[in-house]
Amino acid sequence: MAVHNATGVAMHSLVSELFPICRSITGNGVRQSLKILQGHLPLDIVEVPSGTQAFDWVVPREWNIRDAYVKDSRGDRVVDFHASNLHVLNYSTPVDRRVALAELREHLFSDPAHPDWIPYRTSYYKDNWGFCVTQKQLESLNDTDYEVLIDSSLGDGSLTYGECLLPGEVEDEVLVSCHVCHPSLANDNLSGISVAAHLAKRLLESPRRYSYRFLFIPGTIGAITWLARNRDCVARIRHGLVLTCVGDPGNFHYKRSRRGNAEIDRAVAHVLGIRDAPHEVREFLPYGYDERQFCSPGFNLAVGCLMRSVWGEFPEYHSSADNLNFVTPAALEESLEVCSAVVDVLERNRTYLTTNPYCEPALGRRGLYRTTGGGGIGQENLARLWILNLADGAHSLLDVAERSGLPFALIADNARELADHGLLIEQPCSTSGES
Amino acid sequence: MAVHNATGVAMHSLVSELFPICRSITGNGVRQSLKILQGHLPLDIVEVPSGTQAFDWVVPREWNIRDAYVKDSRGDRVVDFHASNLHVLNYSTPVDRRVALAELREHLFSDPAHPDWIPYRTSYYKDNWGFCVTQKQLESLNDTDYEVLIDSSLGDGSLTYGECLLPGEVEDEVLVSCHVCHPSLANDNLSGISVAAHLAKRLLESPRRYSYRFLFIPGTIGAITWLARNRDCVARIRHGLVLTCVGDPGNFHYKRSRRGNAEIDRAVAHVLGIRDAPHEVREFLPYGYDERQFCSPGFNLAVGCLMRSVWGEFPEYHSSADNLNFVTPAALEESLEVCSAVVDVLERNRTYLTTNPYCEPALGRRGLYRTTGGGGIGQENLARLWILNLADGAHSLLDVAERSGLPFALIADNARELADHGLLIEQPCSTSGES
Amino acid sequence: MAVHNATGVAMHSLVSELFPICRSITGNGVRQSLKILQGHLPLDIVEVPSGTQAFDWVVPREWNIRDAYVKDSRGDRVVDFHASNLHVLNYSTPVDRRVALAELREHLFSDPAHPDWIPYRTSYYKDNWGFCVTQKQLESLNDTDYEVLIDSSLGDGSLTYGECLLPGEVEDEVLVSCHVCHPSLANDNLSGISVAAHLAKRLLESPRRYSYRFLFIPGTIGAITWLARNRDCVARIRHGLVLTCVGDPGNFHYKRSRRGNAEIDRAVAHVLGIRDAPHEVREFLPYGYDERQFCSPGFNLAVGCLMRSVWGEFPEYHSSADNLNFVTPAALEESLEVCSAVVDVLERNRTYLTTNPYCEPALGRRGLYRTTGGGGIGQENLARLWILNLADGAHSLLDVAERSGLPFALIADNARELADHGLLIEQPCSTSGES
Repeated sequence: MAVHNATGVAMHSLVSELFPICRSITGNGVRQSLKILQGHLPLDIVEVPSGTQAFDWVVPREWNIRDAYVKDSRGDRVVDFHASNLHVLNYSTPVDRRVALAELREHLFSDPAHPDWIPYRTSYYKDNWGFCVTQKQLESLNDTDYEVLIDSSLGDGSLTYGECLLPGEVEDEVLVSCHVCHPSLANDNLSGISVAAHLAKRLLESPRRYSYRFLFIPGTIGAITWLARNRDCVARIRHGLVLTCVGDPGNFHYKRSRRGNAEIDRAVAHVLGIRDAPHEVREFLPYGYDERQFCSPGFNLAVGCLMRSVWGEFPEYHSSADNLNFVTPAALEESLEVCSAVVDVLERNRTYLTTNPYCEPALGRRGLYRTTGGGGIGQENLARLWILNLADGAHSLLDVAERSGLPFALIADNARELADHGLLIEQPCSTSGES
Repeated sequence: MAVHNATGVAMHSLVSELFPICRSITGNGVRQSLKILQGHLPLDIVEVPSGTQAFDWVVPREWNIRDAYVKDSRGDRVVDFHASNLHVLNYSTPVDRRVALAELREHLFSDPAHPDWIPYRTSYYKDNWGFCVTQKQLESLNDTDYEVLIDSSLGDGSLTYGECLLPGEVEDEVLVSCHVCHPSLANDNLSGISVAAHLAKRLLESPRRYSYRFLFIPGTIGAITWLARNRDCVARIRHGLVLTCVGDPGNFHYKRSRRGNAEIDRAVAHVLGIRDAPHEVREFLPYGYDERQFCSPGFNLAVGCLMRSVWGEFPEYHSSADNLNFVTPAALEESLEVCSAVVDVLERNRTYLTTNPYCEPALGRRGLYRTTGGGGIGQENLARLWILNLADGAHSLLDVAERSGLPFALIADNARELADHGLLIEQPCSTSGES
Repeated sequence: MAVHNATGVAMHSLVSELFPICRSITGNGVRQSLKILQGHLPLDIVEVPSGTQAFDWVVPREWNIRDAYVKDSRGDRVVDFHASNLHVLNYSTPVDRRVALAELREHLFSDPAHPDWIPYRTSYYKDNWGFCVTQKQLESLNDTDYEVLIDSSLGDGSLTYGECLLPGEVEDEVLVSCHVCHPSLANDNLSGISVAAHLAKRLLESPRRYSYRFLFIPGTIGAITWLARNRDCVARIRHGLVLTCVGDPGNFHYKRSRRGNAEIDRAVAHVLGIRDAPHEVREFLPYGYDERQFCSPGFNLAVGCLMRSVWGEFPEYHSSADNLNFVTPAALEESLEVCSAVVDVLERNRTYLTTNPYCEPALGRRGLYRTTGGGGIGQENLARLWILNLADGAHSLLDVAERSGLPFALIADNARELADHGLLIEQPCSTSGES
């Protein structure tokens, strides 16, 4: 997986373009972000009115914000939304008042452990107003009155999400989902948006066995809304990935689907396993990002979550330190390559039947085995022997890769060559074997 | 599991009261011990006549003893039953003779490794007489004649055991069994008797889903006799524990049932696992205490064995050093608390079905989730998410506790709260799912 | 497993007798070797004509060689077949020419890593001529012309293999296979031939439940040819071992069959596991010796491969250093003892049903348990308890040995004693339970 600077730079550039926008679970920030994505891929922008029922939930009011500040007695903005949109409590109700420091402090959020960072806080499901400030800002406030303004609106409107379906040879789908509800936070989750968008661009230009559905949705309520509106789609989703925190240089982490050993779980574990780098595969946990909804018991979809550093476990998480320096072109591109390799496994995984079940076929005669004996065996020869030995109709190529410890791509390339020589017959229905 | 001195002291006091009595597999010692237990719980005392067939075995003769000694030529008791009932070979035939040292020594048992301890020896199934002495006693004997007396009787009578059934909401039973055939040995097994008796006292005062059957029985022949007389009961025994060596301060050990992963095995492993203390869970072995009989292949009951130090593995085992100092109030009470926690798992283990299988329900709206986002998640919220995610009718609360790594009590408490909010429906028949 | 010098010496002596012969996949070398084996066991020598179809393969031409050398300008043999038959590229086409050094070097094979060793090379499936030389020989050649002679012939003839069937009580067979196609190489595989021959001699003199089939065959094409000619036999093969590299003093290695946990795999793992010596059990790999063919997917026989040092992993492999000093009488005899112990497991593995499923039977009454209680338990008593506890018709004696960790022989001996006392009933069909 060579890292070509051009791709990584373009991915980082998309992150940078989206960074300044103040997104939330509803509102113009999401809309504006999705319009930028439409410049990269054929994205449908869907609007779902506030008040729409979505399973146990209701699509909330639309939130928009124009300005927000705390001014001191001299009229100076000591906290300014235009300096960072993290300064406003996300989804904050409007306010326009003069308050004493004591009252103001009840509405300020800071992180004493990182005195220079602005924390990111939300209040989606309880009406509140507030500001997030650095610990230093908090400590510099004098015991005087302050003018606070949050020029926001919360009212009927809609929830906005983006959806892009790339049809393939079969209707069976691979789902790639990322959240678009975070404001100026780069790794969580502009990185996921950028990797998903660039993966879609790649797939757009390639032949595809599977159909691919990309979702750019507000976290939780967006996934729930999409699932409620698309229950007919769900049965076609055979594999899926939630992408989050895939832009920092940390090691890869993969959280398995609720099923635990679905083909997507095995494909990601294999791809990470054959890379020469530390990584970790974790068990499913019903807490995290939208895999929580896709893996709710009624759906139980084969959707895992790919990360580099794990949300909540790196200090910069949900703070102003999760910025454009925290994500790198190389890390973004590596994540894209891992996703592509996973897609390659899904696309090329097949089950074959050998035409020579009794003893090995004579590979040498067909030029499929090097002919001077006595030394070692090459990886290609070994791959061929493994493929033929397990070509009993009960083992997929991913099974072969796992059992042999050889890279899937090597297995798949050699299986094609053996099939070209008439030594393997592809079994039908290999995409729907798992349920 | 806080240790309240009062309970531990009462448990140790019961051990002390039972300690001086000379018990064996039959005889007045057991009878007298069971009468003391009747002061604590509603115990039936059952007498089974000698000669009664019990599967492949026959109820043996009743053994009683009044006195035993070895007197030297001066008439001094150099070995005296009244100093310790361990001095007589348990189940010894009567003898009243003058013997030379050489012959006497053939009937003396000592432990050179612990020269101050009297070993405990039995001869149930082969007629013999003998004395158990300290190595020091043995070495102090002069080459002269001795007067030996064992004023015992072996004859028709009965085998005696105690049984206490506490009926519950359902007829399905939890069996708690301990042996009562050892003389002055505190950990093996007055500790088991005391823990069982106090557990019964607790259960007597509580509402019970299961029925609980407590057996206080002579080892091996007592269990076999009970099983032979109660074959109709056996099908109702869903879970069981043999309690032995639960009074010393050693780490807990649990021996799995023959089934290996029955609900009782999982419940004990979970309870020990969430305690902050070293412990060991061992595989089944067809040697030990009466789990051997309960786990014989025709019964194959889900009965494991709870211990602190493992019989045969601590030096004091089967010697006069297994005395009232070796067992402590704190250790006894801790064992009772572990048993109570296991009972709590069995009582409260249920299978639920979520009323919201598609996506998570909106917990925040119901006050079941803290509402200011951005930070970590509490254990209660996490417990609720796990319960809901696995509430597909195929996972019990114990499954949830095991998979989440959260304490069963936290899971059960939160499941009740979710059910109270209409988010879970209890599945029927959860007590009989395993067979 | 005591090592008796006499057997080991006889085994090494057979290796020595076979060592000088120049074998290949066809030709007189194999024929001459098999005739020597006929002095030890009732061996059928089978000839299969060149050109015979065997699945995807064709029986190749017969190769014979009388002489080969490279002579320098003075007429001195600088490379001489009579010094070592490894000097000629095995299966080399004939040649009789004068060549310049440059051309000669294209036909010379050496091993720079071991400058004193002659490597072993073959060219079965591509016509070529060549010599194998030490690195020192190679470097000593001057830039002059050389006379090269390989007085070999390649033409219609036959492939030769040896087969010995020792009928047993049942038609179910145990297959023991080794290759006979290597020239002067002691561990690979004269050791296998010697162990197989001596195992056959032992079995010939013993009562046998199973029938035993020994194959002495050229590698790959020999196994394929035998399988093609004996497809009716295959269904009777219940267990099998390929023996290779079993004469050096290295630790034992066992490669599992493709099934992974067949009875042969478990038997070998058990036998190696209870020996007090390091060893390794490896997963199946479709590369190696003739287990590749026996484990091809259409056959999928329960055939594993027993080795001491693993072919390809010891420096002497496929070189003149794999000589009569590299294999030792003690190592050969130990390998024979391991094979005998494996055969003992296969022969004596049975499934029993207890006649006392409810509670333990009274062993003491029958003299099957020591009668003075209070101390430890002997291995024999423990074995009896395990056997009885698992005698539910669902556990074989090998299951009992594995679960108890006790040696199979102890389990089998005690099972027989219990059966003699009427406590166990042998279940029918225990040889065909696995498929």
